Amino acid sequence: MDTIISLKQIQTITKELHKTGKTIGFIPTMGALHDGHLKLVQESKAKNDVTIVSIFVNPAQFSPTEDLAKYPRPFEHDKKLLAKEKVDYLFYPDPKTMYPNGFQTFVTPTELSNVLEGKIRPNHFTGVATVVLKLFNLIKPTNSYFGQKDFQQSVVIKQMIRDLNLPIAINIVPTVRDKDGLALSSRNIFLNPQERVQALGLYQSLLLGKKLILEGNKNVLTIKTRMKDYLKINKLVRLDYIEICDQENLSTFQVVPKKAVVLIAAYVGKTRLIDNLII
Amino acid sequence: MDTIISLKQIQTITKELHKTGKTIGFIPTMGALHDGHLKLVQESKAKNDVTIVSIFVNPAQFSPTEDLAKYPRPFEHDKKLLAKEKVDYLFYPDPKTMYPNGFQTFVTPTELSNVLEGKIRPNHFTGVATVVLKLFNLIKPTNSYFGQKDFQQSVVIKQMIRDLNLPIAINIVPTVRDKDGLALSSRNIFLNPQERVQALGLYQSLLLGKKLILEGNKNVLTIKTRMKDYLKINKLVRLDYIEICDQENLSTFQVVPKKAVVLIAAYVGKTRLIDNLII
Repeated sequence: MDTIISLKQIQTITKELHKTGKTIGFIPTMGALHDGHLKLVQESKAKNDVTIVSIFVNPAQFSPTEDLAKYPRPFEHDKKLLAKEKVDYLFYPDPKTMYPNGFQTFVTPTELSNVLEGKIRPNHFTGVATVVLKLFNLIKPTNSYFGQKDFQQSVVIKQMIRDLNLPIAINIVPTVRDKDGLALSSRNIFLNPQERVQALGLYQSLLLGKKLILEGNKNVLTIKTRMKDYLKINKLVRLDYIEICDQENLSTFQVVPKKAVVLIAAYVGKTRLIDNLII
Repeated sequence: MDTIISLKQIQTITKELHKTGKTIGFIPTMGALHDGHLKLVQESKAKNDVTIVSIFVNPAQFSPTEDLAKYPRPFEHDKKLLAKEKVDYLFYPDPKTMYPNGFQTFVTPTELSNVLEGKIRPNHFTGVATVVLKLFNLIKPTNSYFGQKDFQQSVVIKQMIRDLNLPIAINIVPTVRDKDGLALSSRNIFLNPQERVQALGLYQSLLLGKKLILEGNKNVLTIKTRMKDYLKINKLVRLDYIEICDQENLSTFQVVPKKAVVLIAAYVGKTRLIDNLII
């Protein structure tokens, strides 16, 4: 596995790959890799001639009050994990390379930016869309892989691809969970043992919501209330939102939509976690 | 010359061209073509294997109070002009094709959007950057050609190319002028004979500004005042702005910068015109 840090070098490599007609699978990450990321890599390996992973903790998607500085960066460990998966290229640019002086062009998914995570994290999805577009332009992958855990992110990326006419197939890979059901996240390492136990409440309330819907409950407010009540036993959990949305555009309704996704975001202690289940 | 209206068809054509390694020159236009556009076409023809021109009056770059509806659309005439220049493909999508229901992803050059034309026309450069990026993604040209007359637009596009890591060379082609010096513009047809005479004041005041700078005047305020005074004899001209800026990033200073551009925007009667001279 070659580690590439310069824009010019990654462009040269991908240009050569395109000339030879090879398919490229690409997984953009912020590092701190876990089995969820590795599953994206395995999907890419199975379906593309060449697999490229990027590790870049993207400043543009953090607000000034968020955890950019303390976001975990176990680079050498990440590198070993990717080499073990036989990733072909690791793209590892630094912030000054990606955002040089004078940088000012941002991509905004206007409506999707204003709901759910976007409402709570202003500019987050502008940062996500901008960096992903830059990486797509540098690598021009055939396929790109995103985890279902960041559901709204995957909707944003698919919308961007459609709106900006990019010829890239977006593959959403199901969330990988710990044995007890907690969705894997690079932020789970911040949980103390007590918080780790209560964090499971997020997944369990999602399961309750899914069960209620599959049993025929249609009233969104009722289902949300039942889920919230269920969560209350977890005193370390502070809920941001529970929503039941259309999978394609994240619209909300009073009645559960046909293709629904149940989403949750909450602080567990000082760590903010998100999770979701598709119905 | 083939006229292409569907996204799928233009993508198929350009994909084939890329496979064969042909260079593509691309000129995005809003139609109502004049010799300024045709000069861009000729530059492209001289330097690329294939030349593609788009005609699309882009709703996203007009504000609700602007002249979208009355913007001239002499399509059959435009087509003849392009065929005569031996353009290979004319891409002519309709608004619903470019902006389908649910479209919401916009590209914003944040700082450049807030000065000069951007200050007066909010969202204009977001509209320009968005449509040009879409066209670039569909066509993936080797070279693209823009007129110097829309100077700020050319700076915005170059900034976007840099910021979003697009491998496209942007070529800025000098402004084509009528014999008396008026910059060609699709909006000139709106000028009545009296306005047409006074419109020349814009170019003449630019020439005065350039002369003053070349004579060694360094004080921006003095030069701007002299230019404004000169313009005052043209009673039908209502000035929006005169600015002397850095060519690269459009910054303004009290002292004339080394690589300067003098820009002017004014209404002549009800028609808004812009022009500029590089020093």
